[in-house]
Amino acid sequence: MKCHILTLFPDMVLEGLRTSILGRAEEKGLLSLHGVNIRDFAENKHNRVDDAPYGGGAGLVMQPGPVYSAWRSVAETCERQPRVIYLTPQGRVFNQEIAGELAEEEELIFLCGHYEGIDERVLELIVTDYLSIGDYVLTGGELAAMVVIDSVARLVPGVLHNDASAEIETFSDSLLEYPQYTRPEEFMGKKVPEVLLSGHHGNVDKWRREQSVLRTARSRPDLLKKAALTEAEQELAEKELRKTLDFHGEM
Amino acid sequence: MKCHILTLFPDMVLEGLRTSILGRAEEKGLLSLHGVNIRDFAENKHNRVDDAPYGGGAGLVMQPGPVYSAWRSVAETCERQPRVIYLTPQGRVFNQEIAGELAEEEELIFLCGHYEGIDERVLELIVTDYLSIGDYVLTGGELAAMVVIDSVARLVPGVLHNDASAEIETFSDSLLEYPQYTRPEEFMGKKVPEVLLSGHHGNVDKWRREQSVLRTARSRPDLLKKAALTEAEQELAEKELRKTLDFHGEM
Repeated sequence: MKCHILTLFPDMVLEGLRTSILGRAEEKGLLSLHGVNIRDFAENKHNRVDDAPYGGGAGLVMQPGPVYSAWRSVAETCERQPRVIYLTPQGRVFNQEIAGELAEEEELIFLCGHYEGIDERVLELIVTDYLSIGDYVLTGGELAAMVVIDSVARLVPGVLHNDASAEIETFSDSLLEYPQYTRPEEFMGKKVPEVLLSGHHGNVDKWRREQSVLRTARSRPDLLKKAALTEAEQELAEKELRKTLDFHGEM
Repeated sequence: MKCHILTLFPDMVLEGLRTSILGRAEEKGLLSLHGVNIRDFAENKHNRVDDAPYGGGAGLVMQPGPVYSAWRSVAETCERQPRVIYLTPQGRVFNQEIAGELAEEEELIFLCGHYEGIDERVLELIVTDYLSIGDYVLTGGELAAMVVIDSVARLVPGVLHNDASAEIETFSDSLLEYPQYTRPEEFMGKKVPEVLLSGHHGNVDKWRREQSVLRTARSRPDLLKKAALTEAEQELAEKELRKTLDFHGEM
């Protein structure tokens, strides 16, 4: 998979993403990250790419010309036009399902705005997908692009050491993950749950699944609707939900 | 505000956050970022801080000892114990309201997990807040911590050039932002909306507010419930909602 990132801060994005797993994926040729500095396409000798908003107001808006030229410099090199993802709080809220969908693409372009955003006209011309990583405001689109690229790239076959690892985790079945324990067996008086030391795989799996159901009921009951629960698990979740509601005095 | 970040990749977090606005805030003394490398607290000569999970399964789990020691190295220097935020998909979903709440704190500790997460026992001992930045899986907690720190720090008074800028934007009134335009007046045949060139502030404000309502109705109708709309705005939103539903053939 090839990701082009149009940004005012290509070093930040590339260095951040190359730390850890994605850097190894790039070395293995599974992933290619390409930063494009929008400032290189400035249309004046001061290298400015922003100006005051028409109609007044605080802050600066990125001009359409440099963004368009930066995009064209990439688009010209592509046989098929890749999707162009603009990171913005106005977008569709990104989730694991969208990550899976984007992981199927061979090439993607990410556009990162800064200041008060980007001139609307160039967005209308080039953007195919508006994505938001959540309901909060960031100083720019760079961190949001890094989040999307990280979660998409790790789904590309071979990027994780172990494909099984991507499958059993949170959200793949709409349940939160069970608690994990490693050595030592006792830490500050706290012991690892007995069942995990038993060597009985059936019991371990059963305990972990129950813990996932209980955690989801406790922290994110909204996710339970999408989960495929057995009748017994449904009962377990409902019992835990009632407990949580009692605790908050809402019943 | 002082942020301590407990992580295996302090350079990535610090360099990423120091790009752009937050770096200037640190120079001005409004913000202080402190990275703590959990690996410095490894308890063996190979500097390993992870091990296989009890009960079996793919991946590695971070051991409780090094995480606890890293936390203690910070906590020992604090008069009042700061909140400890663990970034995890199991957490409360982060939003602009929580950002505002955290921006009131003088000191915060962020804990970033990697691999298959962190041993549950040390989380029970030190973590006060479990936060998730959204329903997707990342290779580690670092990007999530950067997202939270970025959105919190920009609310600290003085960090943005212009406090007004933080107030009028997306989510502060539960509406999405209006479209922005800057020079040139015409770009590839597309003109800036006439009203923005009129110089009539009342009309500009009215147009922008309408655009915000329309966009929110179109892209994020779920946010409208929390917005304080006038009767006319309510009608505008409902009309737009019906259009969107007609388009999708859901009525």
